[in-house]
Amino acid sequence: MAKDLKKQPRPKAETPKGFRDYFGADVTERKQMLDRIAEIYHRHGFEPLETSAVETVEALGKFLPDVDRPNAGVFAWQEAEVPGGGPGDWLALRYDLTAPLARVAAQFRNDLPSPYRRYAMGPVWRNEKPGPGRFRQFYQCDADTVGSASVAADAEICAMLAAALEHAGIRRGDYLIRINNRKVLNGILEVMLPEPSDQAVDARGQEIDKAIIKALRVVTERAISSDDVLRVIDKFDKVGEEGVRQLLTTGRKDESGAFIEGVGLLQEQVAPVLAFLTSKGADNTQTLANLRAAVGTSAIGAEGVDELEQIAAMLAAMGVGEDCAVIDPSIVRGLGYYTGPVFEAELTFEILDEKGRKRQFGSVAGGGRYDGLVERFTGQKVPATGVSIGVDRLLAALRAKGLMGGSDQGPVVVTVMDRDRMAEYQAMAAELRAAGIRAEVYLGNPKNFGNQLKYADKRNAPVAIIQGTDEAQRGVVQVKDLILGARIAAEASHEEWKAQPAQTEVPRDQLVAEVRRILG
Amino acid sequence: MAKDLKKQPRPKAETPKGFRDYFGADVTERKQMLDRIAEIYHRHGFEPLETSAVETVEALGKFLPDVDRPNAGVFAWQEAEVPGGGPGDWLALRYDLTAPLARVAAQFRNDLPSPYRRYAMGPVWRNEKPGPGRFRQFYQCDADTVGSASVAADAEICAMLAAALEHAGIRRGDYLIRINNRKVLNGILEVMLPEPSDQAVDARGQEIDKAIIKALRVVTERAISSDDVLRVIDKFDKVGEEGVRQLLTTGRKDESGAFIEGVGLLQEQVAPVLAFLTSKGADNTQTLANLRAAVGTSAIGAEGVDELEQIAAMLAAMGVGEDCAVIDPSIVRGLGYYTGPVFEAELTFEILDEKGRKRQFGSVAGGGRYDGLVERFTGQKVPATGVSIGVDRLLAALRAKGLMGGSDQGPVVVTVMDRDRMAEYQAMAAELRAAGIRAEVYLGNPKNFGNQLKYADKRNAPVAIIQGTDEAQRGVVQVKDLILGARIAAEASHEEWKAQPAQTEVPRDQLVAEVRRILG
Repeated sequence: MAKDLKKQPRPKAETPKGFRDYFGADVTERKQMLDRIAEIYHRHGFEPLETSAVETVEALGKFLPDVDRPNAGVFAWQEAEVPGGGPGDWLALRYDLTAPLARVAAQFRNDLPSPYRRYAMGPVWRNEKPGPGRFRQFYQCDADTVGSASVAADAEICAMLAAALEHAGIRRGDYLIRINNRKVLNGILEVMLPEPSDQAVDARGQEIDKAIIKALRVVTERAISSDDVLRVIDKFDKVGEEGVRQLLTTGRKDESGAFIEGVGLLQEQVAPVLAFLTSKGADNTQTLANLRAAVGTSAIGAEGVDELEQIAAMLAAMGVGEDCAVIDPSIVRGLGYYTGPVFEAELTFEILDEKGRKRQFGSVAGGGRYDGLVERFTGQKVPATGVSIGVDRLLAALRAKGLMGGSDQGPVVVTVMDRDRMAEYQAMAAELRAAGIRAEVYLGNPKNFGNQLKYADKRNAPVAIIQGTDEAQRGVVQVKDLILGARIAAEASHEEWKAQPAQTEVPRDQLVAEVRRILG
Repeated sequence: MAKDLKKQPRPKAETPKGFRDYFGADVTERKQMLDRIAEIYHRHGFEPLETSAVETVEALGKFLPDVDRPNAGVFAWQEAEVPGGGPGDWLALRYDLTAPLARVAAQFRNDLPSPYRRYAMGPVWRNEKPGPGRFRQFYQCDADTVGSASVAADAEICAMLAAALEHAGIRRGDYLIRINNRKVLNGILEVMLPEPSDQAVDARGQEIDKAIIKALRVVTERAISSDDVLRVIDKFDKVGEEGVRQLLTTGRKDESGAFIEGVGLLQEQVAPVLAFLTSKGADNTQTLANLRAAVGTSAIGAEGVDELEQIAAMLAAMGVGEDCAVIDPSIVRGLGYYTGPVFEAELTFEILDEKGRKRQFGSVAGGGRYDGLVERFTGQKVPATGVSIGVDRLLAALRAKGLMGGSDQGPVVVTVMDRDRMAEYQAMAAELRAAGIRAEVYLGNPKNFGNQLKYADKRNAPVAIIQGTDEAQRGVVQVKDLILGARIAAEASHEEWKAQPAQTEVPRDQLVAEVRRILG
């Protein structure tokens, strides 16, 4: 038996598939960015909330334990049997920060202020097939207001998002928050189905019998979901006005010659959609006027336009200009999930992709108003609105703009020439730290001095301190400027290199002053 | 079917058993404390490492998948079957921060600097029965040096721990780091089994035959583990010198009269243990001399004492006095796990427990040197040393000393008297924020003004801003000092209260200045 144990293969030292480790600057730079964002959230009256990573599958909701293992999309496991009771609960890792907020808002509804403004930052887990750049654990950074039906809450979130992006380092002009309203689109869908008129024509332009129109209306009302229309609207950028018209009615041949079936609307129903799609004007006032025309007599549409108008006015009052946040009807992505205002923040500068081509950086945050958050638990509708910042994408953007990095300089490395004088080397490091300078003593085997300098290089050390027996007796230390040294090694001739101008001898009591001088 | 779905009971809004949520100051105060500690770790050349929460059960090691579900102590689950392959991996949530460090040190051994100094802060998970104050997710905060056999690494960790505690807010004199060495104890165990002499006596003081002594030696060497001895040593505080002597030899009657069996050592074997236990002197020099005497001729014991002597010298060189860190042979807890120096930080001030009784706060951090960290993966021994700070305990200590809290003041609340002028209220909040003041607009239903003040109270707001139509027309705002107001309400007469000195009317453009005056 003991033999068998010994024969067991060694465990593999591997991060599980789809997971990753963050080292050094990866950790500090993300932290630095999130700290900046949290500062803005806090100043806007938002309170931090940190829920546990684990929730009951029941509370998470989307994933019910009606199969053997409810792990479609989440990491889930069943608790051990309750002694004397039934089977244990199914538990799971949270897949976002909104589901736990819903649980908290219901569980603590009598204790929390209402409205409840909260922000949350932390990892979430998705049980998905990992791929390049797709991880099964990643960070989210959310801010939500629960319990306010006022669009003032939406406007505040947009203004706060602008402030957060700027405080994180994105310059004004390098981002744009686009705002739309699901209600406007509902209004458009409403006016797409007007009372039948005498002038109705079919898809081929021929006049149709009133009875047929009525029948068609029934059919379209039943069979055409707003999702079908949304899908076409989403293609506007690609296929243009005429393409959208074809796709909404009888269909369209794409570039490859393949025929894409139409949604089946009548020509007269398409006009409001096109009016909506082309409603973006030179400024908010013009866009709002165009939208008002597009929604026509729809009450819900008019309400949506009113809300956008209020949001625009509030943003202006809060000092957020149209160069930062603007009404834009083209924002439709994920709209189906939302019930009112929606918004998306894009970074407008260009970066080079992995193939060296210029491309727009694109979306880094999005959000909007949603219902049914707490309703699942309590049966009462609780209006809510919120935003989620894509942590990895925003960090990548800041790095692409050179706004991150460099902050994490390596420590000054005190080398060890004489093992017996370790305490003295540690005293040097302690003195440097007391002066606020990051410093460490080399703690590997000191025999090979070359290894010590290689170590200093790997640590990205700006300075190395050297004191052998001779220097100790003379009361001096050698201070080696490694950054200058590397430059000289790369550029200088052998003779210049030998002159070693990057290394200075100073009296022991001037160690800190000399290091400070080199670090600038 | 649809009916069945509707009839489903609502999910319970509950944190899973043994888990908890952290709100507001709970989050910010812990963060503030960890930030202070991280600053010190960073200055000592330690690099942050953030591993994923999920590890393979194989890499975690302690929990092998030889049963149906290897969830003894950990939260574990099996991945879905690999298509065309065998069963999926068992994954688990990390139960500490050391096991992931071992995996990382092995996985990235060619890329990481050696020695590798790293710190890690984050939640860990234990699948244990929850109890009062015992949670299944909690924070750990570790710093370790991997790959250095030098006691300079241990000394550095102790000095860094002192600096971290002080930077977190614990004053010098309020903590003490006690340092011991497992090798000294090994030396003691060695000298407990000396070459048999002619003078050996048995437990009753009678002379024993040499052959019997030899036989006994074999028996004791086999049957008496160092753990047995350690367990007795751990009772020294309680039972004293004579009690330890009895427990190590023939046994002892405790206070209740019950007989506790002895470990079975001979009288002559007990002396080194007692010498060890009473070796703490007035200062390190004396303690070290006593220890040297106690370990006698044991080579490993002498090595242990030498190491402690070096550590003491290095701490002195780094400016860490004996009032901060001291050699103390009484630190034995968990010693079995360690292979060299061990240390424990205690807070020495008294606090009142839940029953109002004074008690010492006790241990907040501990650590030491250990082997076999990377060996499991690579077969190569890698020496390591590290410390773990008890995050919850240290935070509780800082709160008990009044060193936390108060930092999280509520926002200034701008009330809403006139729903149509929401944009103006938002402009006020924006102005306050631009001046660095935390501020928010009331976003609930503004109909009932009393509710708005109740909300401000719940938000811990220091100031409320009020502007009705009348004030707006006159270009003024009311600024209500809620802290002063609460004091007046508690202390003043009805007449004084009616005079409302806590509320001031100021011109609109002096809003920020007035709020600033009140906040001081």
